[in-house]
Amino acid sequence: MLKMSSLFLRTLRDDPSDASVASHKLLVRAGYIRPIAAGIFSWLPLGVIALRNVERVIRDEMDKAGFQEVHFPALLPKDPYEKSNRWEEYGPALFRLQDRKGSDYLLGPTHEEMFTLMVKSEYSSYKDLPLSIYQIQTKYRDEARPRSGIIRGREFIMKDSYSFDLDDAGLEASYQKHRAAYVTTFNRLGLKFNIVSAVSGAMGGSKSEEFLAPSPTGEDTYVLCPKCGYAANVEAMVSKVSKVSKQEIAKAPEMELLDTPDTPTIESLVAVMNQKYQANVSASDTLKNILLVADGQVVSILIPGDRQLDLKRVEANLAGVKELRLFEDGDFAKNPGLVKGYVGPQDAKKLGIKLYADPSIVIGSHWITGANIKNKHMRYVTHGRDFNVDGFIEAVEINQGDPCPSCDSPIIIDRAIEIGHIFQLGRKYAQALDLTVLDSQGKSQVVTMGSYGIGVTRALAAIAEQSHDEIGIIWPDEIAPAKVHLVATGREDEPFIQAERIGKELEAKGISVMIDDRREASPGVKFKDAELIGNPYILIFGKSLAQGQVEFRIRRSGEKSEIALGEITSHLVKLLG
Amino acid sequence: MLKMSSLFLRTLRDDPSDASVASHKLLVRAGYIRPIAAGIFSWLPLGVIALRNVERVIRDEMDKAGFQEVHFPALLPKDPYEKSNRWEEYGPALFRLQDRKGSDYLLGPTHEEMFTLMVKSEYSSYKDLPLSIYQIQTKYRDEARPRSGIIRGREFIMKDSYSFDLDDAGLEASYQKHRAAYVTTFNRLGLKFNIVSAVSGAMGGSKSEEFLAPSPTGEDTYVLCPKCGYAANVEAMVSKVSKVSKQEIAKAPEMELLDTPDTPTIESLVAVMNQKYQANVSASDTLKNILLVADGQVVSILIPGDRQLDLKRVEANLAGVKELRLFEDGDFAKNPGLVKGYVGPQDAKKLGIKLYADPSIVIGSHWITGANIKNKHMRYVTHGRDFNVDGFIEAVEINQGDPCPSCDSPIIIDRAIEIGHIFQLGRKYAQALDLTVLDSQGKSQVVTMGSYGIGVTRALAAIAEQSHDEIGIIWPDEIAPAKVHLVATGREDEPFIQAERIGKELEAKGISVMIDDRREASPGVKFKDAELIGNPYILIFGKSLAQGQVEFRIRRSGEKSEIALGEITSHLVKLLG
Repeated sequence: MLKMSSLFLRTLRDDPSDASVASHKLLVRAGYIRPIAAGIFSWLPLGVIALRNVERVIRDEMDKAGFQEVHFPALLPKDPYEKSNRWEEYGPALFRLQDRKGSDYLLGPTHEEMFTLMVKSEYSSYKDLPLSIYQIQTKYRDEARPRSGIIRGREFIMKDSYSFDLDDAGLEASYQKHRAAYVTTFNRLGLKFNIVSAVSGAMGGSKSEEFLAPSPTGEDTYVLCPKCGYAANVEAMVSKVSKVSKQEIAKAPEMELLDTPDTPTIESLVAVMNQKYQANVSASDTLKNILLVADGQVVSILIPGDRQLDLKRVEANLAGVKELRLFEDGDFAKNPGLVKGYVGPQDAKKLGIKLYADPSIVIGSHWITGANIKNKHMRYVTHGRDFNVDGFIEAVEINQGDPCPSCDSPIIIDRAIEIGHIFQLGRKYAQALDLTVLDSQGKSQVVTMGSYGIGVTRALAAIAEQSHDEIGIIWPDEIAPAKVHLVATGREDEPFIQAERIGKELEAKGISVMIDDRREASPGVKFKDAELIGNPYILIFGKSLAQGQVEFRIRRSGEKSEIALGEITSHLVKLLG
Repeated sequence: MLKMSSLFLRTLRDDPSDASVASHKLLVRAGYIRPIAAGIFSWLPLGVIALRNVERVIRDEMDKAGFQEVHFPALLPKDPYEKSNRWEEYGPALFRLQDRKGSDYLLGPTHEEMFTLMVKSEYSSYKDLPLSIYQIQTKYRDEARPRSGIIRGREFIMKDSYSFDLDDAGLEASYQKHRAAYVTTFNRLGLKFNIVSAVSGAMGGSKSEEFLAPSPTGEDTYVLCPKCGYAANVEAMVSKVSKVSKQEIAKAPEMELLDTPDTPTIESLVAVMNQKYQANVSASDTLKNILLVADGQVVSILIPGDRQLDLKRVEANLAGVKELRLFEDGDFAKNPGLVKGYVGPQDAKKLGIKLYADPSIVIGSHWITGANIKNKHMRYVTHGRDFNVDGFIEAVEINQGDPCPSCDSPIIIDRAIEIGHIFQLGRKYAQALDLTVLDSQGKSQVVTMGSYGIGVTRALAAIAEQSHDEIGIIWPDEIAPAKVHLVATGREDEPFIQAERIGKELEAKGISVMIDDRREASPGVKFKDAELIGNPYILIFGKSLAQGQVEFRIRRSGEKSEIALGEITSHLVKLLG
């Protein structure tokens, strides 16, 4: 029985000044977590209990699915991560250190390499597969901007699983098993979530889906079609190319140079076109040439003039690029052929620029675009005739109402927290670390792997994000520090004696209990704390106790009723059964 | 039900080449752990289960004692450790690293600072005390020589508790509560242990005791008196000074210079004394002058010629010294006044040497010792007349049969693994980090603390060290991966069907089960694996099944019997009840 009189807990009346999201504010105020450094937190007793509850649900569902728990160190030698190239690729997000002998180590951000090596050291035959193993473990990422409390921390707990199969069909089966286990797990955790496609079909690549918990403060943006159910994160969405509007153009007029003084923006260009040339055009008839530097190479991304560029989508879809940034004034100085505000794709080859077009810039379409001369534009600049691109790339910012790539209905855009990610890794790590087994013919085969993650600490925060009101957290039954919160009030002994008695009765029935047995705290303080802490059911032993009654409150609905002392336990057993 | 047919486990027939202790050999061979780097291990499924069992017992006993669980990060900012001076003091054993901004961090070796700061941020009144909080957490120490498998690792799991009290009496009470909880915990873990005094009375200091699990391969040496029960680790033992043998000397003859050619050793000196001078002396009449360098200062430790120096005892008792090493040839070259093999204490002041004497070198005793001249010794060199020491220090190696400091009976010396340590820290950390509370008079008081540790991973190894035989591990019931190990043998289906049926029956009674349902493995392989893995009870479904009988083996005693199929479950329920 958790007794508030001795529980190591101080609730706070005010939001912490550095907290911007509800879970961060409430978990600190209600005494679950405390900050230690940027993105690094300690857990107070209530936090430890809630966190263990989340872990228990996850472990339970993994075990039920037949996945086996193992455990790896967090402190790892460099060598396997060098072999997989992640020692370099991970960049500054990897915590690196040396031991007293000067050997290189890292703090594991994820454990693909270690799992691969473990299976390699134990297994050697196709008969040993399929295998799915997992761990619940502390991980480290040196985030550039740790934020949102425990949603994006630098030390955090993850459940990571890996599956090992002989062939693609096996991988698909293991993937589906994990997918099903994740659905059950998140349901038990009381989380609302969408499963969205996470890898753009355009880029080929393996199958990957994210479990996103909708939340207005979430960092992930995703697309949902209310009609057909299509769901994808914004990076993965393949935008629908309208084949009507721009397709009537095959025999467009020759390019024409236009005098367009002082028109460095789309708005000013459209205004001049319509006033000076009576062209009757809109922004969607113009072409934006957005200049980037990708690993030193100048790249121009072509999108319609009425759309915005989404740099995250470009980044996600430009394979192999390590550093990508927008053009700066210094870059223009170094590239005098590129005239700021008047860039066009027609001279790209001459200027040594790489061209990528959003899929909406279809071949055959013609555009009003810069003439690469100050104060001049051109029109009828035609894709496939006057310029050719090095490739298509998903580049425009997705807008609410854009057509669903699957059914053409207007899509919805929402924000969410990524709570899970499942991914068909394929043979990348097995190849790098030489994980093979003999097949039924005695032939050596590289194993194919899947990787599956749940952010454990993040899931706890996501629950609090989705399940709270202005006065506190509202925990689902399985996660709450205690199922029932008993509040004894007044100066008499009787409410305290009865509350403790009922608490013991409930515990004997396997129902976890927290009791506010503080003698000096006022009833108001106790009610506020109970609501802030967020256990699902509250029992108040107060004035009505004289009539043998106890007030019963349901935290989520706010519903209040009186229950006879003798019926409390059976009532709660029924409710929680 | 753990099924060997799909369990991620490969047992090994041979000891790993780098393992020197039984727990390391057996835990690797039986598939509990795998090495990752020096002192860093991974845990396979059986290891995870056994480790969780150890954690569960510890957590259970801590909770029963009213201690509250919290959790701290392993990645910690430098600042608190700088305030306590441990950032420096910990030396190369501390893993230090920097984040992407260049801020200093460490991987926590223990968390005194963080616990102190947590209590400081939550509590402010004497009414909040006493408080005992604990965590079970991964810790890091960059050991110079990680060894003995998981007994001395660089990443390991510890349970660390801290108590907070207003005054010494409170600290003593908290200390005793922890002591009692540790006794219960280690008993439940099936460990044999001794509680030994860990701080020498001579050095003053606070109360501290170690829980030592006797083991021939243990790194700790401790002293035990079979008569009176006195127990201390060797560093803490106060050696009994014999007041008889050396006390008749007050009026010793004047120092006398002796010609003792070629006598750099005690043996050669005694021989010359007895042959050339007919002195009838033994090694115990001569004085060993053992030269050390302590933080650059030359120190001579005086011990009787028939005893050995114990450098670990000297280190433990020489307060404030950071680096201590034996004299080397280069040091003699730099100190020409010190003649190797002929050093004596009588010229210490002139030579700028610090002198420390073992307590057995009592004031008034006289000795045969070097004359600080090659091939010369002196006799009648008297303590208090011809030399004075800077202090006494426990220095001689304790021998089996030395007198008990408490009752004079001969002591026993044994080796052990340190599994727990309880320590009255006092106000060191509270002072350094300004942890105060208001007392009942409204006056600010510095809090006094205790610190209490259990090596969780080490306890698991200690159990395996104490409880194994030449064929495998023998787990205590509470720690075993499964209580009952069912082995199905033969080519028929029946033994497999019956084993699985009984397995389910046992599980329904809450008895954990592991079943060897491998079809291709021979009975011999299965028996060997069962004995190696070490579950306490083994059931064999084999030939006698035709007569409705199953063989029942007790792993610890080797006892075998036949039980009727219908009686197995009730028999085991009774045994494990």
